[in-house]
Amino acid sequence: MPLVSVPDASWVAEVGEVAGVELVPWDLHEAHERARELVIVVPPYLDPRQRLDLLVGLPELRVVQLLTAGYEQALPQVPAGVQLCNAGGVHDASTSELTLALILASLRGIPEFVAAQQDSRWLPTRLWEALADRRVMVVGYGQVGRAVVRRLLPFEVQVTAVASRARAGDDLVDEVHGIEELAALLPVQDVVVLIVPLSDSTTGLVDAQFLAAMKDGALVVNVARGKVVDTQALLAETSSGRLRAALDVTDPEPLPADHSLWTSPGVLISPHVGGASTAFRPRAVKLVRAQLQAYAWGSALANVVATG
Amino acid sequence: MPLVSVPDASWVAEVGEVAGVELVPWDLHEAHERARELVIVVPPYLDPRQRLDLLVGLPELRVVQLLTAGYEQALPQVPAGVQLCNAGGVHDASTSELTLALILASLRGIPEFVAAQQDSRWLPTRLWEALADRRVMVVGYGQVGRAVVRRLLPFEVQVTAVASRARAGDDLVDEVHGIEELAALLPVQDVVVLIVPLSDSTTGLVDAQFLAAMKDGALVVNVARGKVVDTQALLAETSSGRLRAALDVTDPEPLPADHSLWTSPGVLISPHVGGASTAFRPRAVKLVRAQLQAYAWGSALANVVATG
Repeated sequence: MPLVSVPDASWVAEVGEVAGVELVPWDLHEAHERARELVIVVPPYLDPRQRLDLLVGLPELRVVQLLTAGYEQALPQVPAGVQLCNAGGVHDASTSELTLALILASLRGIPEFVAAQQDSRWLPTRLWEALADRRVMVVGYGQVGRAVVRRLLPFEVQVTAVASRARAGDDLVDEVHGIEELAALLPVQDVVVLIVPLSDSTTGLVDAQFLAAMKDGALVVNVARGKVVDTQALLAETSSGRLRAALDVTDPEPLPADHSLWTSPGVLISPHVGGASTAFRPRAVKLVRAQLQAYAWGSALANVVATG
Repeated sequence: MPLVSVPDASWVAEVGEVAGVELVPWDLHEAHERARELVIVVPPYLDPRQRLDLLVGLPELRVVQLLTAGYEQALPQVPAGVQLCNAGGVHDASTSELTLALILASLRGIPEFVAAQQDSRWLPTRLWEALADRRVMVVGYGQVGRAVVRRLLPFEVQVTAVASRARAGDDLVDEVHGIEELAALLPVQDVVVLIVPLSDSTTGLVDAQFLAAMKDGALVVNVARGKVVDTQALLAETSSGRLRAALDVTDPEPLPADHSLWTSPGVLISPHVGGASTAFRPRAVKLVRAQLQAYAWGSALANVVATG
C-alpha cells in the first residue's frame, strides 16, 4: 500500500481513511524513519522549519503535493521523475477575499478609522473614495484571479482581466487581454490587482515604467509575490503621494523594521496572509483527499505544475 | 415655472436643465429670499448647519427630497400636505460596500495589520478568520440590505435575510424571514448585519437578549442607526470578549472621546461614512433629476416615505 505523508496527526485525522493508501504524519523538520517508503509527500503549509531537501534521494517518491499556490520554492528540490502539484483552487476563496479586504479598506479609509479610534477621535464628515464606478484591472487571470473578479463584479465596477496571452472571455469577463496590452490599459485604471505567478517574465513586471503609466491616485494591490513589484520604484511613487498601495507580499519579506515601505503614505501592508485563513483547511483537506483517491485509482492527478 | 432648491451651485450645474422647473441653490443655513416660491426643496447632505425648521410655513412647498436614506430627523419638520421623499437607492452601493469593508476588515485582521504597521512590525503567520464558509444574517432587507446580500453572495457564505415580515424569496435569497424568527435564527450566525430603518420597533432591537442569543465570537455589524443597538448591552458583550462589533453608527453619535466603546476589544468604529463616498454624488444627482422630471410631467414621485 503506497505510503503518504501529511503534515501532522491532525491532517491524518482530517484527511481520514482513503482506500489504497496509508497515511503517516511528517513535518519535514528532520528525516522520517519510513522516508524511503514514501510515495507521496504533502509538506506542511507555510512552515519555515520544513526542509524540502529531505525529499532528495527518496527512492519511491512519485508525487509532492504542495499546500501553496506558488511552487517556485520547491522546483529546485523536486527529484527527477517526481510530479510536483500545487494547491490550485485551495486558496481562491481566502486570497480573493483578502484582495477585496485590502481594496475596500484602502479606498474607504479603514486605516484612518483605526488610527482615529486609537485616539478615541470621531473624524469629521468627508467623502471617501468608493469602489463603485471605478475601473479595476486584474493582472493574472488564473483561478485566484477569477475568484477576485467574481467577488468584484457586484460592486458596480468596470473590470479588465489580463493574462499572459489574450483569449476569449468567459462567464465573468467579455475578453481576457494579453500582457502586451498592459501599457495601453494601465492609464485609465483606478485599481490594479496583481495576482500572477512568480516567474522570470513576472519578476519585476511592475517596474518604474509600469508605475509611471498608472494614473494619479491609483491603487496597486499586490497579492501575488513580492518580487513581482520593484519595491524601490513603488516607494518612489508612494512617497511622493502619487500612487497608493496595498501589499500582502513584499520584497524583501518579511519586511525589516527599518524599511521605508512601512511608513510611506497611502501604503497598507498585511503580512502575507492571503491564504492564511480558516478557509484554507477544509479546502486543502478536500484537495489532498481527492489527489490520494486519484492516485490510488490510477487516475491523473490535478494541479501538476512540474515534473522533476 | 415651479421653483426648486438644491444644496448649492455645484448641484444646480450637475442636475442641469430640467424642462419645466427652475433651480436655485439653498443650503438651508438661513432664510432664502425666494423661499415663498419654492415648490420642491432638496436639503443638503449631512450638513449639521442646515435648519429644516425653515421649511415650516412655505406656502408653495409640495415636496421635500432628502439626500439621506433615513428620514426620521425630517418627519417633525414636514409641513402638512408636503410629500417627504428619501434617497432610497442612492446609498445602496456606498453603504453596502462599506458593510463588506467592515466585515472583511474585522475578520481578516486589518485593524491588527494597521497597528503592526505603525510599529513597523511584520506579524508572525497565523490563520485569520475567513468570510468564506460563514453564516451571515442581514437584518433589514430593503434596497441597501439587498445590495449587501448581492455583494456577499460570491464570498461562499450562507446568507439569511430577515425583514419586518416573512415573504417569498427573490433572485438573491430563497426566502425572507420575518423579524419574529430572529430568536431562532441568531444562535447559528457568525456575522449579523443590521440595516433596518430606525423606528419605534427597531429602536433597541439589538438589546441584551438579542446579543445573548448570538454565538461566541460572532460579529455584529451596525450600518443602520446607532439607536438600533443598546450600546451598554453591546459593551458588556464586547468588553468580555464574547462578541465583536463593527459599527458605522453609534449611540451617542458622534461618540464622545471618553466613551468605553472606543477601546473595547474587537470593536471597529467608522465615523458614519456608509453613504459618505464618491458613489453618492452621481447617484444622488440622477435621483434628483428623475424626481424633477417626474414632477414636471405630473408623474408620481419615487421614494415617498411620508406625507406631512
